[in-house]
Amino acid sequence: SQRPRQGLRCRLPASLGLFQGALLLFFALFVSYDEHTDAASQAVDTDPGANQLYGVFPFFQDVQVMLAVALGLLLAFMPRYGLGALAYNFLLLNFSTQWALALQGLLYHFHHGKVHLGLRNVLTAEFAAVTVLISVGAVLGRTSPFQLLLAAFCEIPVYLASEWAIITWLKVLDVGGTITIHVFSCYFGLGMSKALFRPGKQLGHPKENPTYQSDLLSLAGMLSLWVFWPSFVAALCQPGDAQHRAVLHTILALSASVLTTFLASGPLESRGKLSLGHLQNASLAGGVAIGALADMMITPAAALALGSLSSLACVLGFKFLAPFLARRLGLLDQCGIHNLHGLPGLIGAVAGVVAILVASEETYGHRFYQVFPARGPPGGNSSLAGSWPEVMPGRSASEQALFQAAGLAVAIGGSLLGGFLTGTLLRLPGLAQPPQELCFDDALYFKIPDPAETSEPDNPAEEAHLALKERV
Amino acid sequence: SQRPRQGLRCRLPASLGLFQGALLLFFALFVSYDEHTDAASQAVDTDPGANQLYGVFPFFQDVQVMLAVALGLLLAFMPRYGLGALAYNFLLLNFSTQWALALQGLLYHFHHGKVHLGLRNVLTAEFAAVTVLISVGAVLGRTSPFQLLLAAFCEIPVYLASEWAIITWLKVLDVGGTITIHVFSCYFGLGMSKALFRPGKQLGHPKENPTYQSDLLSLAGMLSLWVFWPSFVAALCQPGDAQHRAVLHTILALSASVLTTFLASGPLESRGKLSLGHLQNASLAGGVAIGALADMMITPAAALALGSLSSLACVLGFKFLAPFLARRLGLLDQCGIHNLHGLPGLIGAVAGVVAILVASEETYGHRFYQVFPARGPPGGNSSLAGSWPEVMPGRSASEQALFQAAGLAVAIGGSLLGGFLTGTLLRLPGLAQPPQELCFDDALYFKIPDPAETSEPDNPAEEAHLALKERV
Amino acid sequence: SQRPRQGLRCRLPASLGLFQGALLLFFALFVSYDEHTDAASQAVDTDPGANQLYGVFPFFQDVQVMLAVALGLLLAFMPRYGLGALAYNFLLLNFSTQWALALQGLLYHFHHGKVHLGLRNVLTAEFAAVTVLISVGAVLGRTSPFQLLLAAFCEIPVYLASEWAIITWLKVLDVGGTITIHVFSCYFGLGMSKALFRPGKQLGHPKENPTYQSDLLSLAGMLSLWVFWPSFVAALCQPGDAQHRAVLHTILALSASVLTTFLASGPLESRGKLSLGHLQNASLAGGVAIGALADMMITPAAALALGSLSSLACVLGFKFLAPFLARRLGLLDQCGIHNLHGLPGLIGAVAGVVAILVASEETYGHRFYQVFPARGPPGGNSSLAGSWPEVMPGRSASEQALFQAAGLAVAIGGSLLGGFLTGTLLRLPGLAQPPQELCFDDALYFKIPDPAETSEPDNPAEEAHLALKERV
Repeated sequence: SQRPRQGLRCRLPASLGLFQGALLLFFALFVSYDEHTDAASQAVDTDPGANQLYGVFPFFQDVQVMLAVALGLLLAFMPRYGLGALAYNFLLLNFSTQWALALQGLLYHFHHGKVHLGLRNVLTAEFAAVTVLISVGAVLGRTSPFQLLLAAFCEIPVYLASEWAIITWLKVLDVGGTITIHVFSCYFGLGMSKALFRPGKQLGHPKENPTYQSDLLSLAGMLSLWVFWPSFVAALCQPGDAQHRAVLHTILALSASVLTTFLASGPLESRGKLSLGHLQNASLAGGVAIGALADMMITPAAALALGSLSSLACVLGFKFLAPFLARRLGLLDQCGIHNLHGLPGLIGAVAGVVAILVASEETYGHRFYQVFPARGPPGGNSSLAGSWPEVMPGRSASEQALFQAAGLAVAIGGSLLGGFLTGTLLRLPGLAQPPQELCFDDALYFKIPDPAETSEPDNPAEEAHLALKERV
Repeated sequence: SQRPRQGLRCRLPASLGLFQGALLLFFALFVSYDEHTDAASQAVDTDPGANQLYGVFPFFQDVQVMLAVALGLLLAFMPRYGLGALAYNFLLLNFSTQWALALQGLLYHFHHGKVHLGLRNVLTAEFAAVTVLISVGAVLGRTSPFQLLLAAFCEIPVYLASEWAIITWLKVLDVGGTITIHVFSCYFGLGMSKALFRPGKQLGHPKENPTYQSDLLSLAGMLSLWVFWPSFVAALCQPGDAQHRAVLHTILALSASVLTTFLASGPLESRGKLSLGHLQNASLAGGVAIGALADMMITPAAALALGSLSSLACVLGFKFLAPFLARRLGLLDQCGIHNLHGLPGLIGAVAGVVAILVASEETYGHRFYQVFPARGPPGGNSSLAGSWPEVMPGRSASEQALFQAAGLAVAIGGSLLGGFLTGTLLRLPGLAQPPQELCFDDALYFKIPDPAETSEPDNPAEEAHLALKERV
Repeated sequence: SQRPRQGLRCRLPASLGLFQGALLLFFALFVSYDEHTDAASQAVDTDPGANQLYGVFPFFQDVQVMLAVALGLLLAFMPRYGLGALAYNFLLLNFSTQWALALQGLLYHFHHGKVHLGLRNVLTAEFAAVTVLISVGAVLGRTSPFQLLLAAFCEIPVYLASEWAIITWLKVLDVGGTITIHVFSCYFGLGMSKALFRPGKQLGHPKENPTYQSDLLSLAGMLSLWVFWPSFVAALCQPGDAQHRAVLHTILALSASVLTTFLASGPLESRGKLSLGHLQNASLAGGVAIGALADMMITPAAALALGSLSSLACVLGFKFLAPFLARRLGLLDQCGIHNLHGLPGLIGAVAGVVAILVASEETYGHRFYQVFPARGPPGGNSSLAGSWPEVMPGRSASEQALFQAAGLAVAIGGSLLGGFLTGTLLRLPGLAQPPQELCFDDALYFKIPDPAETSEPDNPAEEAHLALKERV
């Protein structure tokens, strides 16, 4: 097992250094401030309180907690891979955010030879990074950090292309990223896993099994994700009643998910006991599904129902579908991303179509063309439309529904293809993929204290041992 | 020990399913949006930034962290019941919030055949849920999840009745819920515990004793509660200077509680050592007490003094009163809620009376009738009163003080009675109450990894054992 | 080892009681409300939404999380000193904040015989407290709580004097506290450590070594600090574009620090493995350095470069400088504060000078005299200056740069001297300094569960033992 260490020793630092250097150069040459951060472009009478910072920062901070802390803890359920789960998640978050910041800048914010930067760009770049953090969940623990970085490097551009096609080109409605983020990242991860691992070869691993302590940490991580999830869904909403609805619907969906998880998990498990894997995942399923329609007038009841349904699908996925896929397709899904992001994502996408088909101007009033900008006249009541500027030649409800379906197809197709190619790339030699017996083991990449020297206060044997040591 | 599992297997999921289904039906038939979340009721020129969301959400998020994450960790001091502490707290939070959402909706927001819903309703529903989370602290670990759910089902309506009587009917001032939430939930829990457990039968339990690791988690939970407590107290305050005072006073009270806890704990313990139980509870006592007068002009010094006094009472309660009650009344208070919520709550209620008796129009100026709406003319200076609309035939200071005392009596009486009846109900057979030897043990209700298979990196014996395993 | 306990038993409570009593008296006699918290000073038509609370509270809460929770967890890397790390950090935070609240009140907010108090005062007092929390990092684990309190009592006034000289007198620009907080507290801590410990006497200690679990907690603490760091830097900025830049620059610097830490740590360690000490510290270095220039128009690229550079310095400091200082000067730096706060602080101070030298009115426009108030006419374009009131006889860029250098000298000189004297004071007998064999051990000051009675679910031996117990 020299290979992995060699790989890490030279290639990881070298490539990280290369990336950071290139990004620095790009920033030095092309990145400047936007109108909210540029001092010179402020008028004397600009109201400081109206700066975009104050609308973005609270949501941004919540999302930061989710991605940097909570998600890492959730992934730390593997008892000897907890440091890796926290550290690699953190590394990938920063790598992917910087990478997306550069590419999104060129794609959307490049004017007069400069990319114009503000906090909102960082927020959207983090949403791109989320896809990486989700996707790697399929292969976590059986891959080297170097492989994970390479996967991030490949996934970000594919995501940006897919997101551009879905949102900008097809004008799909997906305010919380159900289709663009969750569905995409899930199938990207599965494609990657499929290409990377030979069926049958990957058996259960002794170090995979959570311990009581690691399950506790992971549960705490889920709870933190659960708390801040409404900010994730609502962060990019139109301010006002739309954002208020997005927050309210997400809370209701998440709350229904929790009750449904508790009622569904026990009966499926031997002797009616609750499964921690179910709790750690299905409690969040409602938040995944609601994203596609969070800002629409779907009624609070629909939000509850959607949360219930998606967490039920998640639990059933863990119990029946995942083992089936593993058996039949030899598909390895380490963290069960298909159960948490795939199935609820699909349910949310379908629910979005229904919500669009039943939407009417009576329900939305003046806001109709704000929530459905692509449904402008002649598709709609022009008197109302007048009150909303960015209205284009209108789509009918069924047309918009078809575009939603097309968007979903793009997300699934693009991610599967991109993921499979990425996974194939990750099989190249020299990427330091750990051998089976060294998977899920932080000792491979971290300087870990030698257990013989440690002193856990709750280990009587060591207590005695040390007591002696000290007397000497 | 088949009984508990059977109970959990059938009854818990069945009743949860029944509840979720009924609630869904209720929402589908009767729940709609309020003026802040309904798209149709927005005028073209409505300022999105003025939506109620932005005044409520920051406080709501802080309270969510406290209830879903921090409180769960604080309760996780029982080393083999940590998963249960986190998971049941989470389940009860969601169950109680949904239950309160429905009942409060009917009570306060039912117009034209519809309950009108916004984020603020969810916030007030969570305040109702807090009472459940506190009360169950008295019986945690010796009860089944099914019993806990039944307790929540009973407590919410009792709380709403008591709160309605105290706030709406008696017009008691209690902005931070000292009387309505803390005193009420404490005595509800004690009444429940008294009825549920036969005196003397419940002895100390080996699994109750915290370990170093569980104490550490619990301490981290307390710290998180401490940080966000000001948001809990100030969330429902009048915006502006009143809310500013509530935040300031809470911080000062909490800070004094910390110093007083550190100075009081050592001398009371053998060999001057600090008790973690004291730290984990008394550091928060000031936040409990300040709620009844947080928005009043009590001077910063009074906030400090109140924090000091209440944490001292909490420490003394742990040291002397709790053991006394256990001995004399056979009263079981697993998490010491009487020390943290009962005693400081009573102190805060009395302090509130004093603050009301000394309040004068000179100190409050135009704000007098905002802070004391029931003190309107002819009780007060009508010229000032004019500036504050919702003013009713006035009360004198001493009248208001009497109403405060009446409110406290309602909270204590109602909670003791309601709690006792609930506890009696929980003794019914078939509620899966765990036998003594299976208390405080997550293995009873959770699929816990078999220790023989786990691999804790800091257990040398297992290290060696696994190393061998891998070679094979 | 009776001495320490005796000391703690009497002196710590006594001195804490004395302090709290004196502070209470001071508050009762001299502390009142400011215009944002005083009800009487509110006009009838005051807009509640304009209260200062709403500009300060979000940043305040983030800083509270950092100081009370995240920093404590970061310091909990010593496996048998985790409770102490959390608890003493919490005690010192509250003690120092109250102490600074009183002194800063007298220094800046004393009008008409009263200190006027609002949430902003508490925020600035917490910034003072930070210096204590950082400084004690140099001596943590080898000192008694009583010594730590005495250190805090001495450091706060020294800090306030130094900060007054640097900011008020020399008008140094340091919006994020790089010079006034980080550099100052680092050298105060080192001076204290130098005076307190005799060279050579302090060897490595068995209980210092982190375990897997303690490293995990510490890593989670670092991640939480990392997330909220932008609020720490931007909290006291001018609202608007300046605050927006401060947040953006801090995020970029922190992000670059993370990548640089990952690329720098491995190659320096044996067999290319990552050092957790590096991750736990160097990932934050960019946040330390950026404070001196966070609100200036330094370009996003410069923020990235600064973050990279400072984390590189931090890693090299851990690897080479710290051991060298320990060997040559017998300097003990328990938590490596010189690597995280000293070196990045110096780099940030120098970068600030450069940013000032290259700043021009073209880049800043109307904001020039807001960011550089001391550079008013005749130093600058008077037409622009007119738009910014608080402009005084102007300084040239190089003059301002010299003042920055002077400020840095004051910070280093004052802290080294003050720290050394404090350290000398801490060597007085009767301060309960723990003997070498009892360092880093919570058992000395906390009532810790007797391991023989604890029941860790992941200890098979105990499992069996308890199983038997229950059958009996």
